Amino acid sequence: MAAQKPSIPKGTRDFGPAEVQKRKYILNTIETVFKKYGFMPIETPTMENLSTLEGKYGDEGDKLLFRVLNSGETWEQLQNPKSKIQNQREFNKVVTEKGLRYDLTVPFARYVVMNRNEITFPFKRYQMQPVWRADRPQKGRYREFWQCDADVVGSDSLLNELDFIQIYDEAFRKLGIGNYELRINNRKILAGIAEGINAEDKLIEFTVSLDKIDKIGIDGVIAELKEKNFTDEQLLMLRAILFIQNDSVDYGGNARMETIELSHLSKLKDSSKFRDIEVFRKGIEELEFILKSLNSINKSTNQPINLKLDFSLARGLSYYTGAIFEVVSTEGTLKSSIGGGGRYDNLTGIFGLPNVSGVGISFGLDRIYDVMDELKLFPESLNATSTKVLVCAFEETTLANGIVIVKQLRDAGIASELYPDLPKSNKEKEKPMLKPLGYADALNIPFTIILREGKMILKDMKAKTEIDLSIEEIIKQLQ
Amino acid sequence: MAAQKPSIPKGTRDFGPAEVQKRKYILNTIETVFKKYGFMPIETPTMENLSTLEGKYGDEGDKLLFRVLNSGETWEQLQNPKSKIQNQREFNKVVTEKGLRYDLTVPFARYVVMNRNEITFPFKRYQMQPVWRADRPQKGRYREFWQCDADVVGSDSLLNELDFIQIYDEAFRKLGIGNYELRINNRKILAGIAEGINAEDKLIEFTVSLDKIDKIGIDGVIAELKEKNFTDEQLLMLRAILFIQNDSVDYGGNARMETIELSHLSKLKDSSKFRDIEVFRKGIEELEFILKSLNSINKSTNQPINLKLDFSLARGLSYYTGAIFEVVSTEGTLKSSIGGGGRYDNLTGIFGLPNVSGVGISFGLDRIYDVMDELKLFPESLNATSTKVLVCAFEETTLANGIVIVKQLRDAGIASELYPDLPKSNKEKEKPMLKPLGYADALNIPFTIILREGKMILKDMKAKTEIDLSIEEIIKQLQ
Repeated sequence: MAAQKPSIPKGTRDFGPAEVQKRKYILNTIETVFKKYGFMPIETPTMENLSTLEGKYGDEGDKLLFRVLNSGETWEQLQNPKSKIQNQREFNKVVTEKGLRYDLTVPFARYVVMNRNEITFPFKRYQMQPVWRADRPQKGRYREFWQCDADVVGSDSLLNELDFIQIYDEAFRKLGIGNYELRINNRKILAGIAEGINAEDKLIEFTVSLDKIDKIGIDGVIAELKEKNFTDEQLLMLRAILFIQNDSVDYGGNARMETIELSHLSKLKDSSKFRDIEVFRKGIEELEFILKSLNSINKSTNQPINLKLDFSLARGLSYYTGAIFEVVSTEGTLKSSIGGGGRYDNLTGIFGLPNVSGVGISFGLDRIYDVMDELKLFPESLNATSTKVLVCAFEETTLANGIVIVKQLRDAGIASELYPDLPKSNKEKEKPMLKPLGYADALNIPFTIILREGKMILKDMKAKTEIDLSIEEIIKQLQ
Repeated sequence: MAAQKPSIPKGTRDFGPAEVQKRKYILNTIETVFKKYGFMPIETPTMENLSTLEGKYGDEGDKLLFRVLNSGETWEQLQNPKSKIQNQREFNKVVTEKGLRYDLTVPFARYVVMNRNEITFPFKRYQMQPVWRADRPQKGRYREFWQCDADVVGSDSLLNELDFIQIYDEAFRKLGIGNYELRINNRKILAGIAEGINAEDKLIEFTVSLDKIDKIGIDGVIAELKEKNFTDEQLLMLRAILFIQNDSVDYGGNARMETIELSHLSKLKDSSKFRDIEVFRKGIEELEFILKSLNSINKSTNQPINLKLDFSLARGLSYYTGAIFEVVSTEGTLKSSIGGGGRYDNLTGIFGLPNVSGVGISFGLDRIYDVMDELKLFPESLNATSTKVLVCAFEETTLANGIVIVKQLRDAGIASELYPDLPKSNKEKEKPMLKPLGYADALNIPFTIILREGKMILKDMKAKTEIDLSIEEIIKQLQ
């Protein structure tokens, strides 16, 4: 059989030792914060039934699902005259019933419903697992990537939103990402605007287009909405709102307030043309409460947390009903979204458990990795190997001693290795230290022990010092 | 839309907080040992190209692969008259080109070949990830389960085998699984036996049947081999070997030596009817070296490691060429295989990198979990939540104070939560402490802080004591 030239599916990646250590560093940092705030881990299966996944992410999402072929003779079933397949949808129904997890929120909602009798509410869970989307791969976008989610379900208190704001801040600070922007909006405000322009029935279309304002500008949004049959009158009102400019509130063209002041919000609530729309007022009031609470926390610290109000922030997913968040890294070339989330009032309702409000956030591991890598934010102490010392022997007899020496080191808790191979070729025998020391060098192992002529030489690979010591002395020094 | 009754695919599982904590405990314990022995982590994608997976696990394995449907209009491609699908295999070729990872060894071999120029050999990697097999689910057998593998490639030294024996022993002891049996054999011995009975060309058939000796007995093995066209003469010789009984070596009917003594091995090497078969002698010599080295380690410890020689141990996978291992738990009702591995001399050859010997072992997370759960080996200190203290308030004003108090606790590194909801119904208002204290109880949170009438009461949930303290005193006490 001719050897294959191996490859991996596009949009997927291998992670070597150095990358895994860095990825684990991010995961561990985020996990530590989640735990400190009282979140508990769960894990759900990689495969979900398609009935769980389909219809939850919009038509676009359904197309991006990875579907798993049913086991057994699927082909024969297709031959069954009764099937009479006419299109892809009917084909899928016969040959596939499972798909790969698309996000962590829908499986979590499914989990909550299935385990509702065992769960103590409010239920605060975190989940750090890969998800899969058959998206077109491009820089920073992968077909397999990791999400780190924390959610609270069974509590409608806005203090949960406050916790998530603090979690974002603490986690990004711990990771060294000091320059980030935490954007907030409230779907109720967007719902109020839609109601105000008599487009309540088109809230989803409105938010989906609005979400693109950073990319296509206000004119692009207006044009898209026109295609979606918004009337000229509606669009005129909308344009006016997105350009709101008055003494106290100035969003500029991108509908973004640089910092939120409580006074701005109350003015907006009382003077906006939408002040009589209940859901609009409710959205503003929720923001007010969050901001007020955040102010009391900011008073007790010298690292105050900044929120940016962004009226154009809509989030792609349609299940959000209250606060929505997005975090964007603002340093370096990768000004990408590294987190997002929001409140959803009825996600578990899809699976038969209504009236359970939830709110959650997500960290995008892969984007965070790319940002940290570019900004060189990983600690220098991260090393691919944990090995502290490599024991090197060059003859059968010293190698036999090496077995016991490395055992003693490990028993003392020192991560260590015995270089397992003796010189074989004549060339290797002439320079027996070349390979083991090259190995220690390449792996950045800080110490080697050279066994030679009955002696143990401890070599500091950086300082290039060599000392003749006993094993007890070596252990003492390395511990 | 009617609510769906949600479910998950058969053979897969959700893991709640308590289970995840236990699973992480096992993973962390094994990982700590891997690191101490100098292994470095890698991760490979969930999906591999089917060209990487197919043909590596035997015909049975190919059937158990989960295949992922190609994106796009696969159905239309099938309509293409040129395809003319006649069977499942041809169907698969058109609609699927990716599959889910079936084990960690083949992706690792693929990784080594693709990254050969960046890797420093010997390459010692560990990998802890889920794998998927479309097996019939049954007790202890899942369709999604985790493997924890460590492998060395690029070294043919038997000291690597010695390290793996120690890793198994250290990891299982650390987990509290003291009663396990570490079985060893060598494929070279089996190859020698096959050669000795003139069945060199049927080594795979021989080992596959032999592997079942525990289940079907020696008569079952002989019957199966007869079906595979072994001659009566061959079977007569085989029966005699599997019943070897002499003064120094007694395998009993199941070909297992309870403890290996060096003297047994040398007698076997010199007096067996296969003593002139080179590969047989080589197999025995390798075992001798491993045992001799292990003896020198055992001398330096009061916890000697026991190996059991098992001539019937064959391992299902055909790529093994040297030592093979299997670990079986011997306590409780689940006497199942909790680990296995072996040496393979040419696994990377399939992908175009010949002559790279490797050896590795695997821990089966799910089996280990089941054993530890039955034997109650998990530490009592493992708790679903990490929260040390729950702050409870019953009015708007104290809740506002609670925000700052929980912030102070967290800043001091104490995992804590503020119960986010105020009493709503009249019933709740009558007994406002019921819900928050019930939450703390259910989650086994050791302390609560009750905010009431300007006081802070620290309540020890187990001892049922209550003390009025300042926040500074509370932090001091909880740290």
